[in-house]
Amino acid sequence: MNKVITISRQFGSGGREIGAKLAKKLEIPFYDNELITRAAKESGFSEAAFENAEKKASNSLLYSIAMGMNAYGNQDIGFTHLSLDDQLYLAQANVIRKVASEGPCIIVGRCADYILRDIPNVVHIFIWAELEARKKRAVKLYNLKEHKAEEEILKTDKRRANYYNYHANEKWGRAENYHLSIRSDFAGMDNTVDCILHFLGYGERGTITS
Amino acid sequence: MNKVITISRQFGSGGREIGAKLAKKLEIPFYDNELITRAAKESGFSEAAFENAEKKASNSLLYSIAMGMNAYGNQDIGFTHLSLDDQLYLAQANVIRKVASEGPCIIVGRCADYILRDIPNVVHIFIWAELEARKKRAVKLYNLKEHKAEEEILKTDKRRANYYNYHANEKWGRAENYHLSIRSDFAGMDNTVDCILHFLGYGERGTITS
Repeated sequence: MNKVITISRQFGSGGREIGAKLAKKLEIPFYDNELITRAAKESGFSEAAFENAEKKASNSLLYSIAMGMNAYGNQDIGFTHLSLDDQLYLAQANVIRKVASEGPCIIVGRCADYILRDIPNVVHIFIWAELEARKKRAVKLYNLKEHKAEEEILKTDKRRANYYNYHANEKWGRAENYHLSIRSDFAGMDNTVDCILHFLGYGERGTITS
Repeated sequence: MNKVITISRQFGSGGREIGAKLAKKLEIPFYDNELITRAAKESGFSEAAFENAEKKASNSLLYSIAMGMNAYGNQDIGFTHLSLDDQLYLAQANVIRKVASEGPCIIVGRCADYILRDIPNVVHIFIWAELEARKKRAVKLYNLKEHKAEEEILKTDKRRANYYNYHANEKWGRAENYHLSIRSDFAGMDNTVDCILHFLGYGERGTITS
């Protein structure tokens, strides 16, 4: 097993759980919120600042303004003019590149697929699910009322798409950006994990089958 | 096994081979060109007319004209004004609905995913691969020169995308249109088949694992 795996996921699709199960089966590190913490610590930014950057991404116009778009709609990339949010993104990108260089691991979200796109042997996976299934999951896991769950799902996905589209300058959720895209509510969590393992050439127990 | 599976694929990605292998493992019928033949026979249209309709789809403007777009860019859907190509599409759609109603089967291409989108228990799969891998496959399988292979791939995919975008009025290759999207050259043909089987909840030998 010599692979770094990135997982992009819709809110409520179980992408985080699938990533964690996969990491456990393959006995490799799993990075999610830990990543923020690590990035924050190493770069000297506080966790709160990172969280704030993500929240701004929920409104694409506000986000563009926050990220320092100039009057022509282009991003000002002069290093002396980098916004705090751009600096935070770069700090996260550095951490993602660092953990990926340390060996096989699973990284969930944070544009990791885009940041590592030119590195060979990195596998990119997209997990999605039907809205109804995601609502049920959000109600159950996050203890939300049903109408609140839908609102949270749409808001979170909009934020993730804006964050991705801004930083990666590409559309989130295009099949060709990922080696594998799976609808998790159709397959179920365990079959989704098995499906990924077989895609990678591994059996359910992490043994090589081909 | 109570499922109809549609496979959409890029030219040279091995989607047809994967579909055939899957059908063999699951012991269910496989429809590809046979479908055209059957549709042609049942509707009284000749095979040549069907092939002609597909060829026209390689140029999207020409295709729209051939399909009878009106001056406002809208399709004239009055049955008395249906173009021959639209009639052919409807005949194919009828055949696809008919074979799907007969029981589990695998159908490759021909907008089958769109035609069957509202029918429960139909699984839609998209197979794609990197251009270089598709070129190698086309050179080997279809005995084409390398530059000819690239031309043929781009032309065929453009034709398929136009055919899909016109009839389905949706974009071809969007992750959310498919339960599963797989990059076949990364996984290899056999791992791709295993991956699909596990997504469906079946082991490699077609036995239920969950």
